[in-house]
Amino acid sequence: MSQQLAVGIDIGGTNTKFGIVDRRGNIISDGRMLTGAHPEVSMFIDELHGHLSKLIDAAGGMSQIKGIGVGAPNGNYYTGNIEYAPNLRWHGVIPLANLLNEKFGVPTRLTNDANAAAIGEMQYGAARGMKDIIMITLGTGVGSGIIANGQMIYGHDGFAGELGHCIVVPGGRLHPGTGMRGSLESYASATGVTNTAIEFLTERTEESLLRKYQKEEINSKVIFDAAMAGDHLAQEVYAFTGKILGEALANFVMFSSPEAIILFGGLTKAGDLIMKPVREHMEKNLLPIFQNKVKLMFSELRESDAAILGASGLAWEIQES
Amino acid sequence: MSQQLAVGIDIGGTNTKFGIVDRRGNIISDGRMLTGAHPEVSMFIDELHGHLSKLIDAAGGMSQIKGIGVGAPNGNYYTGNIEYAPNLRWHGVIPLANLLNEKFGVPTRLTNDANAAAIGEMQYGAARGMKDIIMITLGTGVGSGIIANGQMIYGHDGFAGELGHCIVVPGGRLHPGTGMRGSLESYASATGVTNTAIEFLTERTEESLLRKYQKEEINSKVIFDAAMAGDHLAQEVYAFTGKILGEALANFVMFSSPEAIILFGGLTKAGDLIMKPVREHMEKNLLPIFQNKVKLMFSELRESDAAILGASGLAWEIQES
Repeated sequence: MSQQLAVGIDIGGTNTKFGIVDRRGNIISDGRMLTGAHPEVSMFIDELHGHLSKLIDAAGGMSQIKGIGVGAPNGNYYTGNIEYAPNLRWHGVIPLANLLNEKFGVPTRLTNDANAAAIGEMQYGAARGMKDIIMITLGTGVGSGIIANGQMIYGHDGFAGELGHCIVVPGGRLHPGTGMRGSLESYASATGVTNTAIEFLTERTEESLLRKYQKEEINSKVIFDAAMAGDHLAQEVYAFTGKILGEALANFVMFSSPEAIILFGGLTKAGDLIMKPVREHMEKNLLPIFQNKVKLMFSELRESDAAILGASGLAWEIQES
Repeated sequence: MSQQLAVGIDIGGTNTKFGIVDRRGNIISDGRMLTGAHPEVSMFIDELHGHLSKLIDAAGGMSQIKGIGVGAPNGNYYTGNIEYAPNLRWHGVIPLANLLNEKFGVPTRLTNDANAAAIGEMQYGAARGMKDIIMITLGTGVGSGIIANGQMIYGHDGFAGELGHCIVVPGGRLHPGTGMRGSLESYASATGVTNTAIEFLTERTEESLLRKYQKEEINSKVIFDAAMAGDHLAQEVYAFTGKILGEALANFVMFSSPEAIILFGGLTKAGDLIMKPVREHMEKNLLPIFQNKVKLMFSELRESDAAILGASGLAWEIQES
């Protein structure tokens, strides 16, 4: 049987991860390299080709490879370009899918990392067999990927699914990256949680384990540890964050009525601390016809594998279209 | 050529409209009857069959008919049922598509009226040739229909696209019908506009043409007339409504990145009075990658025809699936 493997490539601001994946989501082999080591994207492609060629040869050669899927910041599915990614060394419009296609000689698809995560979840993870899901990645930022009718929603320009930038608190907290006020990302990201804790520590006088830290030392890790140690203020940070996220999810449900919302990323480690208020405020803000229907799930992909798996999931879609 | 016609049926709280439509959206013949004249849905179907049979015979007989499309409150596309529609005389779950299919012997599809409007707009109206649109109906309530990848988004349960019930002002105005606070419908509907005017008249002391009316006499018509006559307070009602609607549309754009948002219904008659603030506040709340891209359009279907056309559009989709 040929073409039973796919290549997944995840291009991050710092590292690029790559791997060979089978149809069940087993990573046969993988590796990583620095994204920013080369000033020219062609040199980046050369190095990546060198690493991957070895893995591909060891897996049985190019005849085994169905295609290449890439997750990258500002990756546009329609054009195959990375467009003006602020965190990457290569500026402007980079025709990455075409470059990889020419280098490797197999079909290549590109999308952004959150969309790739959603596809990975549908191919191998918590959303197997589902046709309508919303994936929310809660990390440094808040990303999202939306699947409806079994298809990724890319929108007319390839940029659909920027739910982190929806305004959920009109006139609310300033997002320094976008200049917008009250976006979901300014509350439900690692930075958002940190800012909430700092606000609470400033506005309130109650005791807290977090008071032993300097403002600059407060981060999502110390807030999590304090909350797990029973610290009331730290727990309230999660309650507040969960309320805002839950309200946002309710709006998203009334848009595409997904079977499941799948959460991924650092914030999900807080477990019930965040999930209880998320669920409560989501349900509370839903019309009755939507209540108690939506599955609220954590990703089933290991965080270390998810990026490669998600990207590789794009490659399986090539044959289906 | 056979099967070049479709039947469109729009079931409203008061009237049921029906018509025979060709592929270009010409209504060959149409009629109407009272929705609530019969206690049993079977009697309603009998009367409807009587009316439509005459129209169908005059149009060349059943062999000309591709199928029947129905727009109805709480119409579920997947099941073909009207489910617990509060404004209809028949309670519970009504298997309307099946009943019509048995009576007429042609495929029948059912959805809610806002979804039907979106399909009509794509088949015959402003969205011809587009694959990604959001339709917003601004009438007594606020309805919506979302099309992505050329397909209606029904969601896993058939109820997707209830954008009127998204919370846009957390903790805001109470919606008496849903018990929720701050939903788009509580501001951007005819009732919402009326309530805004009453609030402004109560909170403010400025002169206004609207002050010659009793509170009970204020409605969207008198507000429109006052605004057109240059009344400042009435114009501010539109500015306020447009701001909230524009902010909501920005969030919707970041969800599905449509090529166009198509507005339909009473509020659109205010023209630039509402569209200027809508556009301004939509653009202001979009990430730069989405700015100045989305077409904000009015429906191109005549209001009197739109319901039948939209419903008939469902019938053309039957052959495509």
